[in-house]
Amino acid sequence: MTDTPRLILASKSFGRRQMLEQAGVPFDVDVANLDEDAVKDSLKAEEASVEQAAETLAELKARRVSARQPGALVLGADSMLECEGRWYNKAETRAEARDHLLALAGREHRLVTSAVVLRDEIRLWHHTAVARLTMRAFSEPFLDAYLDAIGDLACASVGCYQVEGRGLQLFSRIDGDFHAIIGLPLLQVLDHLRHQGVLSS
Amino acid sequence: MTDTPRLILASKSFGRRQMLEQAGVPFDVDVANLDEDAVKDSLKAEEASVEQAAETLAELKARRVSARQPGALVLGADSMLECEGRWYNKAETRAEARDHLLALAGREHRLVTSAVVLRDEIRLWHHTAVARLTMRAFSEPFLDAYLDAIGDLACASVGCYQVEGRGLQLFSRIDGDFHAIIGLPLLQVLDHLRHQGVLSS
Repeated sequence: MTDTPRLILASKSFGRRQMLEQAGVPFDVDVANLDEDAVKDSLKAEEASVEQAAETLAELKARRVSARQPGALVLGADSMLECEGRWYNKAETRAEARDHLLALAGREHRLVTSAVVLRDEIRLWHHTAVARLTMRAFSEPFLDAYLDAIGDLACASVGCYQVEGRGLQLFSRIDGDFHAIIGLPLLQVLDHLRHQGVLSS
Repeated sequence: MTDTPRLILASKSFGRRQMLEQAGVPFDVDVANLDEDAVKDSLKAEEASVEQAAETLAELKARRVSARQPGALVLGADSMLECEGRWYNKAETRAEARDHLLALAGREHRLVTSAVVLRDEIRLWHHTAVARLTMRAFSEPFLDAYLDAIGDLACASVGCYQVEGRGLQLFSRIDGDFHAIIGLPLLQVLDHLRHQGVLSS
């Protein structure tokens, strides 16, 4: 029997880490710095689709880590938010998060989550999931109380919500895989990890 | 402005409690004892549907609590599992959980979750969600390792899985609302709680 390959998560997202831990997956974390907003801008200029952009970003994050982690399976992931043609990046301030949430209120948006696995800089697998979410037309007092309650988490993810927690109160409708919305299409990732022998079958 | 009504969760389920807490809902817990298996047996004898049975059980649990909590909103819930015509109750022992999981392996089952809100023993609202889940044909060594890992949690829910944790490794496919699978159709519950003034809009 060959050795079980090591799994490296190339993401600093708390939601992704927690999800893998709770599902009983053994892994380490190694994160490469990447100017995501600059990559997104250039992909948008090239008229890439949201799905292509999420996949490209997930792969870029994994590729840099893969180069310094020989033999390991490196899992990269990215989530992109699109509403009426506009791509939303993570907010940098509370004021910006507030603007994003007001722009999304009362509308449907798409959240596209892509996961990619590389070994020795070669892509072995990828999966992209698309969810549709509708934010209700919440009041401004509700929004301010929400931002007070979640604090810095407003800047932790695209969309500024935290759907695994209090952010669920922002929504009237959610269609799509809940794990993918948090940050990883987890059932599909687990399937690939069984295929690679990281998990037993 | 009238007082905000108190919300009482009439369930001892850890998953339901945690879900409401994480979503920022204020509530207390008060649980009535009910011989659920006896009620299920009599409903099955009367040829009730799985949906009717889940709704009846959710309401019975809430009704007993409502009688001793005047003026409060009482939220009752029940999850029923049906596979190829058979209804599964919670397992009482590890051996029974093992039998259930082996019977479900490689098959699709339906998980029906009903939530009911009563005030002063009058039903104000209910919602029933149906999810379809397919367990993969896992090996017996995998199953034994899984049961070792989750311990007493195997007897904590119908289906003996713990889909919010390691139990996700049991599945190849999940169609349905993830919160409902854990135990409450949460988006719909939140909507009703806003309607009742428990949550702000």
